Amino acid sequence: MSFGTLEYQERLRKTFQSMAAKGIEVLLITDPANMNYLTGYDAWSFYMHQMLIIIGGEDQPIWIGRNQDANAARLTTWLYQENIIPYPEDYVNSESKHPMEFVADILRQIGQERRSIGVEMDNYYFTAKCYDVLKKGLPDASFQDATLLVNWIRLIKSDKEIEYMRRAGKIAEKAMMSGIDFIDEGVRECDVAAQIFHSQIRGTKEYGGDYPAIVPLLPSGEKTSTPHLTWSDNVYKYSEAVIIELAGCFKRYHSPLARTVYIGKPDDEYKALSEVVVEGLNACLDMIKPGIVCEEIEETWRKIISKSGITKDSRLGYSMGLNYPPDWGEHTVSIRKGDRTILQPNMTFHLIPGVWLDEYGFETSEAVRVTDSGCETFANLPRHLFIKDGLFENIS
Amino acid sequence: MSFGTLEYQERLRKTFQSMAAKGIEVLLITDPANMNYLTGYDAWSFYMHQMLIIIGGEDQPIWIGRNQDANAARLTTWLYQENIIPYPEDYVNSESKHPMEFVADILRQIGQERRSIGVEMDNYYFTAKCYDVLKKGLPDASFQDATLLVNWIRLIKSDKEIEYMRRAGKIAEKAMMSGIDFIDEGVRECDVAAQIFHSQIRGTKEYGGDYPAIVPLLPSGEKTSTPHLTWSDNVYKYSEAVIIELAGCFKRYHSPLARTVYIGKPDDEYKALSEVVVEGLNACLDMIKPGIVCEEIEETWRKIISKSGITKDSRLGYSMGLNYPPDWGEHTVSIRKGDRTILQPNMTFHLIPGVWLDEYGFETSEAVRVTDSGCETFANLPRHLFIKDGLFENIS
Repeated sequence: MSFGTLEYQERLRKTFQSMAAKGIEVLLITDPANMNYLTGYDAWSFYMHQMLIIIGGEDQPIWIGRNQDANAARLTTWLYQENIIPYPEDYVNSESKHPMEFVADILRQIGQERRSIGVEMDNYYFTAKCYDVLKKGLPDASFQDATLLVNWIRLIKSDKEIEYMRRAGKIAEKAMMSGIDFIDEGVRECDVAAQIFHSQIRGTKEYGGDYPAIVPLLPSGEKTSTPHLTWSDNVYKYSEAVIIELAGCFKRYHSPLARTVYIGKPDDEYKALSEVVVEGLNACLDMIKPGIVCEEIEETWRKIISKSGITKDSRLGYSMGLNYPPDWGEHTVSIRKGDRTILQPNMTFHLIPGVWLDEYGFETSEAVRVTDSGCETFANLPRHLFIKDGLFENIS
Repeated sequence: MSFGTLEYQERLRKTFQSMAAKGIEVLLITDPANMNYLTGYDAWSFYMHQMLIIIGGEDQPIWIGRNQDANAARLTTWLYQENIIPYPEDYVNSESKHPMEFVADILRQIGQERRSIGVEMDNYYFTAKCYDVLKKGLPDASFQDATLLVNWIRLIKSDKEIEYMRRAGKIAEKAMMSGIDFIDEGVRECDVAAQIFHSQIRGTKEYGGDYPAIVPLLPSGEKTSTPHLTWSDNVYKYSEAVIIELAGCFKRYHSPLARTVYIGKPDDEYKALSEVVVEGLNACLDMIKPGIVCEEIEETWRKIISKSGITKDSRLGYSMGLNYPPDWGEHTVSIRKGDRTILQPNMTFHLIPGVWLDEYGFETSEAVRVTDSGCETFANLPRHLFIKDGLFENIS
């Protein structure tokens, strides 16, 4: 397990508090990050239905998952054997049986069928069908939306979580440099992606890397006009930008990082874009400290970027840390207008002032922790546009 | 785009047929593989809500997604500009606005608010909340479950899809050999995983690899008692088995493959297990041809394995091909008792006779295509247990 039992118990205690505040007696957890957060459970089994049952005040959650994954629950969690309840294999991809029927049966057997039950309504792994089947199977229960209930508890990290994110930051730094070093005219995009993956997973000599929740995003040329394209087997051309967005990951904790490389000589317009974005990011990093509210960070960014005539509709950043595919974001705090969350020490954000225009874009980002008096970045790399033009050259 | 417009139009025509057969007038597609199948759309944007609207008989689907992903739709699909409808960024991770409100608004604007609407009820990316918001926004529509409607159309592949899967098979072969070669006593698990990732993404000289929908699964020692554990930064020990399950991927088409390596000298019991599993797999490969039904394959397997006293509750295999995280399986046909699907040419399956006992397990698998008279495997590697004991040694 990545943490001691006491840390898991403390997380469970906070979950009970949130449940009580919302009048939830039984909480059903389907978000794999929340399952991991409360029990340590770690396996690529979330492509089949699985769930934790959290009953207010009980010693431990109950894990329900596919039969062949029960040993994974035994090997990776702090749960008693009797709290690991596998469903038979004939519930898998079946037209006649659904795993949520099994869950409803268990809830009835343990006398929870008339409770106020919280479900993660907007989580990827709680489908519309899951909810329909549960409601049908538990007609006397009352359901309420508990989306993000545990995610909000994850917002402030423990010192051990921060240590994991620092390690992830070192891995991100290495992976980013391996990508930047490898990119050049005539090199295939997939070969750069392969190099980045290798660095992400190998990690450092002292600790290995885990798989990030998102693969490296690697748009080039006109594809930099949008952030979520991956790579092809085309070769890079002279006079094009390449955006690299990636994360280092250690024991499921992420530290994301974005940089942009230009192959050739960028024109003045592109250089100016890169400079104002970096200036805006630096100004945000200078102001972050406990007590300010999230929207103030975005306001600082917006003031600086507005000099250049550029507007950015999307948020400047978001809370992140522990996660599984398809996202490393926590889906709670966003750094944008209207978000009045007050910064506290050990909150962690990805600040990503990406700008995507009609024909090209630019990104540079930092993953940060709010400290007692300011902030630290998890990675340590120059923020400017990286230039590849014959000899490796940095714009200072 | 990975296919010509004619192939996408043919897929759309088949979708209209299925819709008509089920009385569905408007189909909402959230499965990223189905979105790709019908339009070519390919971006890691599925962690935010996005959707295709398919209106029976209309020329093209409508893509709805996040504003910053609209350029990805322009760059990767055959859709007209006016069929790409982005929602504003303030719908992202918002407590007050949900992207399905936007979708409902669009459906009303285009006069589809009283239709019979099909939704993919049990797809990861169609959450319980999505369905609730849509029903509220479209009170005069009637909804029905269209889970797997498009997946069933994907069951029989075109020749071009098969060509992509053959390439994926070559990549799987290379990635598997790089893992087997690298595994040894004293080597870190993460370093083997890094090597595998590198091979998967680099691909071959002729074509590059895409990211598989599942990361390499790499349990060792007692962790082989369950199939979905990944890796750590521990080093391998003498006298332990390591299972490698991975896929090669080309343009989102997969070819999965599993092999088991033993570091040291396996005992007779383990050798016997490996031999009977391979014998069972070989017998299945020998009998696969058009006209037989899926459960007959499993029956053949079960007869052979029963000699050894081993029982396997989980299915023997499943249909697969095009996909996105978190799964490469198509969730339609399973090779197990009760599945009466009749094999036809260009169906493609992952046959994975994995056995997971209390303290250890063994896997060897093949991805296959049903041919006109039998089957072909996409990869070409010996099926036996691979032994690493000083010098590299194969059990023949």
